Amino acid sequence: MKLSNRVEAMQFSPIRKFNPIAQKAKDAGKKVYHLNIGQPDVETPAVFMDAIRNFDQKVIAYAESGGLPVLQDAIIDYFKSYDMHYQREDIIITTGGSEALTMAFLAMINDGDEVLIPEPFYTNYHTFATAAGGKVVPITTKAEDGYHYAKREQIEAAITPNTKAICCISPGNPTGAVLTLDEIKLIGEIAKEHDLYIIADEVYREFVYDGKDATSFGMLDDIADRVIIIDSVSKRFSACGARIGCLISKNKDFMSAVMKIAQGRLCTSTIDQVGAAALYKLPASYYDEVKAEYCARRDVVYEELMKIPGVVCQKPGGSFYITAKLPVDNIENFLMFLLEEFDDNGETVMFAPAEGFYATEGLGKDEMRIAYVLDQPSMRRGVELIRLGIEAYNNRK
Amino acid sequence: MKLSNRVEAMQFSPIRKFNPIAQKAKDAGKKVYHLNIGQPDVETPAVFMDAIRNFDQKVIAYAESGGLPVLQDAIIDYFKSYDMHYQREDIIITTGGSEALTMAFLAMINDGDEVLIPEPFYTNYHTFATAAGGKVVPITTKAEDGYHYAKREQIEAAITPNTKAICCISPGNPTGAVLTLDEIKLIGEIAKEHDLYIIADEVYREFVYDGKDATSFGMLDDIADRVIIIDSVSKRFSACGARIGCLISKNKDFMSAVMKIAQGRLCTSTIDQVGAAALYKLPASYYDEVKAEYCARRDVVYEELMKIPGVVCQKPGGSFYITAKLPVDNIENFLMFLLEEFDDNGETVMFAPAEGFYATEGLGKDEMRIAYVLDQPSMRRGVELIRLGIEAYNNRK
Repeated sequence: MKLSNRVEAMQFSPIRKFNPIAQKAKDAGKKVYHLNIGQPDVETPAVFMDAIRNFDQKVIAYAESGGLPVLQDAIIDYFKSYDMHYQREDIIITTGGSEALTMAFLAMINDGDEVLIPEPFYTNYHTFATAAGGKVVPITTKAEDGYHYAKREQIEAAITPNTKAICCISPGNPTGAVLTLDEIKLIGEIAKEHDLYIIADEVYREFVYDGKDATSFGMLDDIADRVIIIDSVSKRFSACGARIGCLISKNKDFMSAVMKIAQGRLCTSTIDQVGAAALYKLPASYYDEVKAEYCARRDVVYEELMKIPGVVCQKPGGSFYITAKLPVDNIENFLMFLLEEFDDNGETVMFAPAEGFYATEGLGKDEMRIAYVLDQPSMRRGVELIRLGIEAYNNRK
Repeated sequence: MKLSNRVEAMQFSPIRKFNPIAQKAKDAGKKVYHLNIGQPDVETPAVFMDAIRNFDQKVIAYAESGGLPVLQDAIIDYFKSYDMHYQREDIIITTGGSEALTMAFLAMINDGDEVLIPEPFYTNYHTFATAAGGKVVPITTKAEDGYHYAKREQIEAAITPNTKAICCISPGNPTGAVLTLDEIKLIGEIAKEHDLYIIADEVYREFVYDGKDATSFGMLDDIADRVIIIDSVSKRFSACGARIGCLISKNKDFMSAVMKIAQGRLCTSTIDQVGAAALYKLPASYYDEVKAEYCARRDVVYEELMKIPGVVCQKPGGSFYITAKLPVDNIENFLMFLLEEFDDNGETVMFAPAEGFYATEGLGKDEMRIAYVLDQPSMRRGVELIRLGIEAYNNRK
């Protein structure tokens, strides 16, 4: 009874694999600042649980496979504020952005097809693409360059006859890089010329700082037939456990294909959808508040990072991640050191080593991702611990 | 921008495709008895929403990828009453039984691998297997024989070097057939001899009638390494919209492989899991009540079906479905007739045509599935309408 080749090719989450070691450190009495996971500490808006508590149907019944109309309509209204106009049939509600990505790949990829992804990238793209029989082809970006990837020559060099899609996470996980509308236009042009789908993962849409506006691949009409937008309540509304996302496209053939998959798994959680509808109806002021908080945290993290001699990092423009190159020989060894050998007043820190975010063998060995999902004093202390840890690590022999 | 071959090979839900036509009938003022879908009218036990209303964490956070421990523990306790003993690592909580099946196939199937399924079968097995690159190989059963399939010769005749697994839905959807423990032993022997996984879809476990006991592939220790149990709260607790199921196996390599997929999609809905834990803790008396109601409905349906001259149907022993052969030339044409041309005092009826439940071309053209998910008077009237409809249909020229 062998396992499938695809599952043999998959990896365990590189973010989660250090958890047992962190647990040991905690069991031994150390305090660990968790800068490693994208689980915000921001309270989920109360409207979510309020809507659910008021749900009074006696039978928790299947929802429509495409989603509850009340949620689809709330999403339609939300996008109107960006002058993006959708209809219910353009939107399929999914179990998190994760399921939207899985469905998108299943609907487009045959064995051996390639999807372009700027690396470092959110590691589960590897899992989703592999599950569909696809191959991730990375577009390598660099810390020195702020992980910038909207470069025609570099993108075109990676395109082959097997390329099916280009995936853009903007604002980026793990880099925090944000595409400008001009860059979106450029990528759209390339996709048109090479007949590619564009998977636009925009779950951090509102989290753009320094006075810049949110951008979206959905803002350009001429690529509407090839754009597949991935959205989610997880990060925007700090509702990661609600497992509500959606897949949005104006390509009717594609949506019809995705609907076959959606019907197979019947539907998404009914009560989570009821709660999510209330979230999408929140006023714009909600984003302003959350954005201000994340921006302040980013500034704290960046300020503290800059105190580390030899760190390489450009201030990222969005999401709630910073990826940086550290002056250490091996980032995973350094993380092990932090958890097993280091402490400062009984405290240590955990980040996500970036190696797992790269598809290219050998890259990311001196990079880490920080999620700024804790309050400002915790973030400041967490990065300070990284700095103190580097000193101890590099002086340890 | 082509779609994937797999999604081209998938079909739209054959159960749902008549919905627009039924809607037209309703818009025209007809009352339609929906015997076509497995959405029970039984109230979801109040403990589900009570547990959720009492959930007071301020952040709706990710759950563990394998599931919330409180739910895993409730499932462990539930199975103890069947003398089946599991540990947390044997259980991965999934988004409905659907996701459990999807993950099971992804973890075991390579392109071209075959899975045996007695037909007629729950139609989404086709979608799940196809999504993983697999091929459904049917073991054909017959109405005349009560859709019985535990026959060594017939099963072995379908096995090839590419066979990876045998899938058993017991109690059955759409047939209502229930495997005895001796039949489970037989299938277990065959699986051992041919080194197959057994996917044991037991989401209707408690719905067995006529004084018989619930059976499970998990009751036999000697096949524990090859058995994958699919469970769900949807039917047992009438909580279809809660989207909580699980995949259970004592095969540690297999569970480790499934965990890679589970980590990729992060987790299952946190609050649905909180509610589901309360459901699994319900006392055995809950099943007794629900079972008595479904049994009474089955008896009503069967009694009314027997009034149809030429019907072929053996009384099924479990689940809440009956599949029967009707004296009509074409079941889909007959259903169209019921919805578009027929009524009795302004009422008509809808069932699921069985053609979509067969993988073998040409079978099921005179069979239908009824879900007895409405109260007894409605079920009686619904089947009466089928009888009256057949008279009108066969006399229509």
